[in-house]
Amino acid sequence: MTDTRTNAVVLLSGGMDSAVVLAIAREQGHACHALSVSYGQRHTAELAAAAKLAQAQGAVAHKTVTVDLRSIGGSALTDDIDVPEHGGDGIPVTYVPARNTIMLSVAMGWAEVLGAEAIYCGVNAVDYSGYPDCRPAFIDAFQSLAAVATKAGVEGRAPRIEAPLLHLSKADIAHRGIELGVDFGQTVSCYQADDDGRACGHCDACHLRAEGFRAAGIADPTRYVEAANRP
Amino acid sequence: MTDTRTNAVVLLSGGMDSAVVLAIAREQGHACHALSVSYGQRHTAELAAAAKLAQAQGAVAHKTVTVDLRSIGGSALTDDIDVPEHGGDGIPVTYVPARNTIMLSVAMGWAEVLGAEAIYCGVNAVDYSGYPDCRPAFIDAFQSLAAVATKAGVEGRAPRIEAPLLHLSKADIAHRGIELGVDFGQTVSCYQADDDGRACGHCDACHLRAEGFRAAGIADPTRYVEAANRP
Repeated sequence: MTDTRTNAVVLLSGGMDSAVVLAIAREQGHACHALSVSYGQRHTAELAAAAKLAQAQGAVAHKTVTVDLRSIGGSALTDDIDVPEHGGDGIPVTYVPARNTIMLSVAMGWAEVLGAEAIYCGVNAVDYSGYPDCRPAFIDAFQSLAAVATKAGVEGRAPRIEAPLLHLSKADIAHRGIELGVDFGQTVSCYQADDDGRACGHCDACHLRAEGFRAAGIADPTRYVEAANRP
Repeated sequence: MTDTRTNAVVLLSGGMDSAVVLAIAREQGHACHALSVSYGQRHTAELAAAAKLAQAQGAVAHKTVTVDLRSIGGSALTDDIDVPEHGGDGIPVTYVPARNTIMLSVAMGWAEVLGAEAIYCGVNAVDYSGYPDCRPAFIDAFQSLAAVATKAGVEGRAPRIEAPLLHLSKADIAHRGIELGVDFGQTVSCYQADDDGRACGHCDACHLRAEGFRAAGIADPTRYVEAANRP
């Protein structure tokens, strides 16, 4: 049987948010092409999780594209800067300069090759951790760029940039994922998960995730390096 | 002596245009951080040329960041599609989807780390070969994105996107380079140069370059695979 669904590229980090985004894109009727970007992040367990999630969620393809951001530095996620404990104000040291712009750019390139009509990403403005590239203004600006940056854009077929989690709380995201059958036990959010995907329980990402499950009243399936580390 | 110049990131492919851009950025008083992006292009001779040019033009640093675009495909420059002979209409098969967006995104990331006040690129709308991401509308849209995409942007210090060749003909670019002391013999423009940087003489890039030198009345220092191939 021919697949009559339209193509979408879905940015899939292996974390909880992008797992839900993939499930949403599939529910919205797309043939999903999952894209992971290996940017030199310390937490490679996320990438392994992404591959499993792509399969579990019925993506028609999954690619991991390497973008070596370690060489430009500037983030605790790619450099030898310690990942901070939860807390602190302003833009955190885990911010990777231009990360979402770079990931959406690569997604736009693949969308062009596929003739995809949409690019889905897990950008979230509520629990956005102070990252500038997680705000609605960023998504709008990237949509405007897509209209002029590619062959598809010039021909009036620029992909829509879909950020379905933009205004959801972590608890909303957890609920949405459960409704759509996402197995959160397969996802890795921790900034410094071990090779087996077990979470540290101390970083911002661990705290946001645990609070999300708690607020949603959903049992947290996260595996921690030590059970006592559960935030 | 302390370097009191402001930082700029300069996209440097190793071709003729970006060599002139680097010379312009230096003339405009910047400490230039040259950035080459290895995106799986066949013509790796360009990257070797970039390293030499960065040194010859007094860049304070040169980095090559790998972005593996071969895995998303869609271009004669990264795939097993033949590079066409000169000629033909419309957007050519040498177009690499989202290439300039990706390269500017990586430059924006490095600019953020450096606190650079400008990003220089060799985008050119005159001899633009039909690439959508070589037009003024593209540069404007990327500038708008830079204002919201990064920490620097949010703080009102987004880097200026400088495209000093935007409205210059290839002959103008050749003249400007000669004025600024660029050794064009070090540059490689050919889409399928050999490992030694010698040009094929047949592709669009070779033709544009040769026509530029001819129109400028400047001796063409290009080395060809065979002397008879000179366009």
